[in-house]
Amino acid sequence: MNLIELPTPCLVLDRTILARNLLVMANTLKRLNVPLRPHMKTAKSIDVARMALEGQPGGITVSTLAEAEYFAGHGIHDILYAVGITPQKLEQVAKLNAAGADIIVITDDLDTADAIAAQPNPPRALIEIDSGEERGGLTPDDDRLTDIARRLGRSLTGIMTHAGHSYAGRGVAQMERIAEQERNAMNQAAGRLRQHGHRIEIVSAGSSPTARHAENLSGITEMRAGVYMFGDLFQSEIETHGADDIAVTVLTSVIGRRNGRILVDAGGLALSKDRSTQDAPVDFGFGLALDLGGRRGYGNAIVRKAYQEHGVIEIDPAYPIDLPVGGKLRIAPNHVCMTAAAHDRYFVTEGGLEVTAIWHRINGW
Amino acid sequence: MNLIELPTPCLVLDRTILARNLLVMANTLKRLNVPLRPHMKTAKSIDVARMALEGQPGGITVSTLAEAEYFAGHGIHDILYAVGITPQKLEQVAKLNAAGADIIVITDDLDTADAIAAQPNPPRALIEIDSGEERGGLTPDDDRLTDIARRLGRSLTGIMTHAGHSYAGRGVAQMERIAEQERNAMNQAAGRLRQHGHRIEIVSAGSSPTARHAENLSGITEMRAGVYMFGDLFQSEIETHGADDIAVTVLTSVIGRRNGRILVDAGGLALSKDRSTQDAPVDFGFGLALDLGGRRGYGNAIVRKAYQEHGVIEIDPAYPIDLPVGGKLRIAPNHVCMTAAAHDRYFVTEGGLEVTAIWHRINGW
Repeated sequence: MNLIELPTPCLVLDRTILARNLLVMANTLKRLNVPLRPHMKTAKSIDVARMALEGQPGGITVSTLAEAEYFAGHGIHDILYAVGITPQKLEQVAKLNAAGADIIVITDDLDTADAIAAQPNPPRALIEIDSGEERGGLTPDDDRLTDIARRLGRSLTGIMTHAGHSYAGRGVAQMERIAEQERNAMNQAAGRLRQHGHRIEIVSAGSSPTARHAENLSGITEMRAGVYMFGDLFQSEIETHGADDIAVTVLTSVIGRRNGRILVDAGGLALSKDRSTQDAPVDFGFGLALDLGGRRGYGNAIVRKAYQEHGVIEIDPAYPIDLPVGGKLRIAPNHVCMTAAAHDRYFVTEGGLEVTAIWHRINGW
Repeated sequence: MNLIELPTPCLVLDRTILARNLLVMANTLKRLNVPLRPHMKTAKSIDVARMALEGQPGGITVSTLAEAEYFAGHGIHDILYAVGITPQKLEQVAKLNAAGADIIVITDDLDTADAIAAQPNPPRALIEIDSGEERGGLTPDDDRLTDIARRLGRSLTGIMTHAGHSYAGRGVAQMERIAEQERNAMNQAAGRLRQHGHRIEIVSAGSSPTARHAENLSGITEMRAGVYMFGDLFQSEIETHGADDIAVTVLTSVIGRRNGRILVDAGGLALSKDRSTQDAPVDFGFGLALDLGGRRGYGNAIVRKAYQEHGVIEIDPAYPIDLPVGGKLRIAPNHVCMTAAAHDRYFVTEGGLEVTAIWHRINGW
């Protein structure tokens, strides 16, 4: 099967770029002597997980319990569910753990810590630390930190943070500073807890930018990262990877032509309405048009509008797009985690036009 | 089953509001003596289609061939696929039509018209007219109009337009003017084609705002509309319906609390990254928080940030949200077509907390 034969819109995954991105991250963290607990929220695929786990201890991170169930069903048991747990979800976790999984939960809440400890077979738990993102978690000096640790009792296995504020960073030097801030917050929190006699085995940090650019990870026992596997326009702009390291694109067909624009069948659903590049150096609208081979043959041809099933590409006058209705091209996504989530499978290539595999995704909740 | 027991995030569909919205639209068009060809791109559900078709001729509109296949499989055969057809998709249409469907295709392209006419059993075809949206279609005075009609030959069944520029309109008076512009464009195009001896049976127009507010639809043989069934914050702001007419909401759980904000488990995937209210009178961020009963008990508590699986609700100081971690609330969507597409089912209520049915959706392509 060839890309040209595929029904559109659909997701194309270039395995050669994926493998390269995985190797870069693995080597980066190897130098710092920290293993990776890959975050499967982006790929949501067992095939990608197996590649990402090569040379790693074997644990993964997930963003939904649907992912947890899916990956446990495929034999991956050490799973960190990196979204604050609720009492109701503890019941779902207990069922999966009873069936053989070993799901680790996170919390930053006193009552939830009690609920975890009150389980008949409490799961391992990490306390969520806010290392600067100001989303979830306690700051390392928060009074509640030791209280939660005490309430968790023997469930307490460590701490975790997500340096998501790295997404507001720009350039390598800033990412290094944010990574160091993340590390310091974690070492401060771990130190306080250890002083109180708590066992802190796991000190889990990460985001793709900080994992990629940290200079020192001493004290951190594992890094979590997900979007680095595929890359996207936004991550390229903040220098998590290069412009040619985007492994996942949306294959689309031309469905209309007008002065200086083409209409394609990849709209807001197939691309997502994510506008993360809006505040980045280059605003890529809803994505950047690439030629069928996935190369930048159309200059700055940007998806300027995205209706539900229609995308409007503004042609770069220096790079005419000479495709008839039905002609195919590809679109690099702004934010691949959002774009991929509308699709239930990847059409895998080895960098060419031939489809060598179809890999499924576990979407939803 | 009660909403409080559901795993989150998930979609809640209030059947009483849905039924009311359907009735308002049916009555509106009945007065103008024009039948409805409901657009199933929003609901993507056979259960909703059956309700929307009550008292109507029985044809529907779809936005994907996956929808076409699904609805044909459920016995609805008269299906307008309202996205410009490509030669490759004509093959898929031919297969579905051979199996009993009667899919109508649309085009505004000369070569595609030839490809349609060259089919062994050509489907019915409509020429797409641009009535002001400037997305797809030919303007009524375009020279190619009669050429395409000639090429389509006996496939030609009529014309269609989508007055999507109504989404940029504000208020009833403007919508009336846009509806009249839509009607005039269609009558002009139909007139030209009929003068050339072409059979124009179907003159299909629509968008929820113009279907709702048209004063005169003389010459139009059917209206298409979809989002009116569920409603959303954006449609409420442009006065397609009232503020209490939003039938679909996202049920979510509190997963964290901070000064003046709560963190919920409905993020960019569960809500979509749509920001259509950004330019409307009130910017609802990524959605408006409602209480568990779906009522506006939390004032202007707006989802200000949407990460992949985390939403950040800014609490309205006049309406404290006193929910613990695990507490549930609902979020009214900006743009329900986008929000619903991340979910594979509806949990249906009759306005209360009891779940009376589960209805499935056909997502993807």
